[in-house]
Amino acid sequence: MDDLYRPIPYPLLIVISGPSGAGKDTVIRRMKERGLPFHFVVTATTRAPRPGEVNGQDYLFYSGEEFTQLMEKGEFLETARVYSDYKGIPKQQVRQALASGQDVVLRVDVQGAQTVRRLCPDALLLFLTTDSEEDLSGRLQQRQTESAEGLSLRLATAREEMSRLGEFDYVVPNRDQRLDETVDLILGIIQAEHARVHHRRVTL
Amino acid sequence: MDDLYRPIPYPLLIVISGPSGAGKDTVIRRMKERGLPFHFVVTATTRAPRPGEVNGQDYLFYSGEEFTQLMEKGEFLETARVYSDYKGIPKQQVRQALASGQDVVLRVDVQGAQTVRRLCPDALLLFLTTDSEEDLSGRLQQRQTESAEGLSLRLATAREEMSRLGEFDYVVPNRDQRLDETVDLILGIIQAEHARVHHRRVTL
Repeated sequence: MDDLYRPIPYPLLIVISGPSGAGKDTVIRRMKERGLPFHFVVTATTRAPRPGEVNGQDYLFYSGEEFTQLMEKGEFLETARVYSDYKGIPKQQVRQALASGQDVVLRVDVQGAQTVRRLCPDALLLFLTTDSEEDLSGRLQQRQTESAEGLSLRLATAREEMSRLGEFDYVVPNRDQRLDETVDLILGIIQAEHARVHHRRVTL
Repeated sequence: MDDLYRPIPYPLLIVISGPSGAGKDTVIRRMKERGLPFHFVVTATTRAPRPGEVNGQDYLFYSGEEFTQLMEKGEFLETARVYSDYKGIPKQQVRQALASGQDVVLRVDVQGAQTVRRLCPDALLLFLTTDSEEDLSGRLQQRQTESAEGLSLRLATAREEMSRLGEFDYVVPNRDQRLDETVDLILGIIQAEHARVHHRRVTL
């Protein structure tokens, strides 16, 4: 009966999501900086590399044709259109990391999280938030790339995204100047999920 | 919509359970030593106070008659017979602590945990274990109070108790010399539970 004492550590598929401005990229960057033993998914994209970006490290850069072929083969867990470009989560990469026993971390928008849930019901869906709508608005305004029109559209989108919180497993406040607390809470959640008696069994 | 950003922190009913020898009392003692902001339930008992034990602090000491009256009024969340004495978890104490917004920690044996679950389906049930049956056996042997006969009975009981792991929410390994890791995992689980989108709502 010793297996009762040594449960198998099933790897998790951890989805970092939340409205635009909640800080998904920042949180994942800090997780990487802290050298945590997760596989961070490298997203596929059709956009051109920016100066300094490394293929296979920052992104997997594909031509529109290559991307379309992979999409038609059902090789993406989730895809999203960003202006005229496409982004996608490569299934095979996630499968391989899970097979090696690693927890996999990926970043998707709120809509994409539901696509992941549909394909993988046992995915762990985390919803990042700020402390208030004012904070969210403040962060979106700080982004130099946003025009006034873009900002109001983003805020309306964020409101719609907040209303979908109920479709997620955990809500993680990502407060200004308290990034490590956010990461610590995510680590606590992952640790707790590994201690669950009825653990998630991710299949793809 | 600001309530979406500031969820209500529903208090938890945290049940520390597990087979005899897993270290329930030791873990709770360390949690108290670390000054954690929980309400630790003071158990009611009919046994006589031992030297140095303080009524209302170590236990609530009741006569057999008083205890029986409370039991008949349904004032205990759970009761257990220990040799010729009785122990019980006072409902009113748990209710008051929860009403004040505090997380409540209590210790019950494996059978008692199921009684708590029946009365309070949203209780958080933690199952402490050792690394192996040998460790459990070693700990039981170290207890000077156990006769050889008592030990084999306890081991058989522990085996039966281990088989009921599936009725719990989380399994928490309590390894020798690593008591603070055990407490840290419990804190991680509690923190994660408070971050759940669909949180437990304890009613008694």
